[in-house]
Amino acid sequence: MFRFEVIRRDAGSSARAGLLETAHGTVETPAFMPVGTQGSVKSLTPEELEACGVQILLGNTYHLHLRPGEEVIGRFGGLHRFMGWRRPLLTDSGGFQIFSLAALARVTEEGVAFRSHLDGSERRLTPERAVEIQLALGADILMCLDRVAGWPAPAAEFEAAERQTLRWAERCRRRWRESGEAGTRALFGIVQGGMDPALRRRSAEDLAALDFSGYAVGGLSVGEPLELMLAAAAGTLPFLPPEKPRYVMGVGRPEDLLDLICLGADLFDCVLPTRNARHGKLFTSRGTVQVTHAAWRTEEGPPDPECRCYTCRRYSLAYLRHLFLSRELLAYRLNSLHNVHYFIHLVRSAREAILAGTFADFRNRFYRRREI
Amino acid sequence: MFRFEVIRRDAGSSARAGLLETAHGTVETPAFMPVGTQGSVKSLTPEELEACGVQILLGNTYHLHLRPGEEVIGRFGGLHRFMGWRRPLLTDSGGFQIFSLAALARVTEEGVAFRSHLDGSERRLTPERAVEIQLALGADILMCLDRVAGWPAPAAEFEAAERQTLRWAERCRRRWRESGEAGTRALFGIVQGGMDPALRRRSAEDLAALDFSGYAVGGLSVGEPLELMLAAAAGTLPFLPPEKPRYVMGVGRPEDLLDLICLGADLFDCVLPTRNARHGKLFTSRGTVQVTHAAWRTEEGPPDPECRCYTCRRYSLAYLRHLFLSRELLAYRLNSLHNVHYFIHLVRSAREAILAGTFADFRNRFYRRREI
Repeated sequence: MFRFEVIRRDAGSSARAGLLETAHGTVETPAFMPVGTQGSVKSLTPEELEACGVQILLGNTYHLHLRPGEEVIGRFGGLHRFMGWRRPLLTDSGGFQIFSLAALARVTEEGVAFRSHLDGSERRLTPERAVEIQLALGADILMCLDRVAGWPAPAAEFEAAERQTLRWAERCRRRWRESGEAGTRALFGIVQGGMDPALRRRSAEDLAALDFSGYAVGGLSVGEPLELMLAAAAGTLPFLPPEKPRYVMGVGRPEDLLDLICLGADLFDCVLPTRNARHGKLFTSRGTVQVTHAAWRTEEGPPDPECRCYTCRRYSLAYLRHLFLSRELLAYRLNSLHNVHYFIHLVRSAREAILAGTFADFRNRFYRRREI
Repeated sequence: MFRFEVIRRDAGSSARAGLLETAHGTVETPAFMPVGTQGSVKSLTPEELEACGVQILLGNTYHLHLRPGEEVIGRFGGLHRFMGWRRPLLTDSGGFQIFSLAALARVTEEGVAFRSHLDGSERRLTPERAVEIQLALGADILMCLDRVAGWPAPAAEFEAAERQTLRWAERCRRRWRESGEAGTRALFGIVQGGMDPALRRRSAEDLAALDFSGYAVGGLSVGEPLELMLAAAAGTLPFLPPEKPRYVMGVGRPEDLLDLICLGADLFDCVLPTRNARHGKLFTSRGTVQVTHAAWRTEEGPPDPECRCYTCRRYSLAYLRHLFLSRELLAYRLNSLHNVHYFIHLVRSAREAILAGTFADFRNRFYRRREI
């Protein structure tokens, strides 16, 4: 029930187009996953996501474990039925949110003890529990619990995090295999190693030896400068098994996605399209449009004349500006729909260009349009 | 382009079913109008409103005048195109909001001077300007500027407000006739008179003599007890011309709508369905459901098993509870969709019962279901 196949490789880069088959359907890669943090991609329905061409969503284990709890979602047979999403789902392990949101996280070899950001209650997460929770959530793709070190930190801390991530990955793998669901649901290992290429390479190679269903580049977007982030990804991707899917976690801007596709990445997730939408920032073929700009007061055209999303087909910038300034709920919704559509369309267009052998042209056109 | 016809009268009450024809299509009455305060029914798209069976919307002149301003909306040819709504639109005059929202409102015979609740800027509204703004907004039905007195107030204040409302109605009517649009767009007069039946009757009869396209019962929901509100409506509706549409403004709960339909009302508007939705209160065939209730933690059923709205067809109470407790934007949207559907469906069902000659049964069933 889980299978990945590269169907075309780009001649001029490491970009590739693939098919990722899961129990809930096939994902055409490269693919962008919108983030359904608390069991909802903020403001949007499953039907709207499907209409945008979304093929796979990400759910956050940390948030769903705290509220409503995996035992509630488990009663519905998993997150798919609970939230009404029929296509594939990937869940993260909760590790990243514990480090970024929870208070007083204490890491031991056994796992992490932390306090809920919602009510301060004491919680514990081990590699085994992370897998169990994700199984209860019914994810098609589970992620290993990893240990994230923030940027900057001493080299020893990145190395310790990398080693512990590897040991936890083995424990996650064992629990996943024991569950009897390893044939139905995939488990991905996560590369750590900070911004040190040697550490990243060792992490990638040691994880590869454990033979996961796929691999993720983790530990990015933790405060490091953008160049370091891309360098860390570039120093990781070549050392991941080429026949397995590669997922770059939590990145990023449209230009970053294209760079990472060039480096051979297959999967992405990021809150940028929905978060920026709620701040009135729209991604367009000509760059970012701030919807509050006074120039749009009477603008009858849509945010992006090249875009075919519902928002651009139906509404003017003047109306979107008015809704946003009036703090109307519809503003966040129409902006989110547009931005998700933009990201999905961008990555799908990149895929089509890879398949057509025109990916270099596609990238050049992307950058040229932004310079207008 | 404006025509009203009563097609069936109930034998046991003053209830009636009618057809109200406008330039943007026909409204089957009795009809409930959701409120699109700032050019949007909070969180919902025009397509969703249409799918719920909404045939006419209300827009707020006060809000749209302040932001984005009728000159912006006028560039789009009116509110229909600006907000993407194709069916009929009614706009209020702004009078009620000036009295409830604006600061330092000073009323003279000429009109009202007030300060914007948004930026404190000084504004003036006269009966003539109220008509002009509504014409710029492109409403199918315009409302006269009325003077509202809050409850409680001395009898003299209610009488003064009623007399001034009548004089302003004459000025509105003159300006409307001069515009050359009286054949395309309707103008409704508004009855005032507080809770005094004699004053209400005089107001109704004096306005009727001016021959408006329709008549509204105004000055309700200003702080008075519920029984007085219904008594005031009951003391007004019989004195309005039976061949003209009758609109009860700003009311109310489902049971109030049925009572008012019995008294011969044809049109209603209220923010209750959308406002309560945002507070997690759902209207159902068995009464109100508070979505946060602990009993719904694992409830797999929808809010209302009898309801055919998108929310009830697709989501469980457990999921709606989770979304609301998580403050997810989708919560407000799914709750609003359900509540608007409930109101529309209730009033349409009342209409069908009137047409079928079974309205008394319909009312009895409505109350019986709530006692379960």
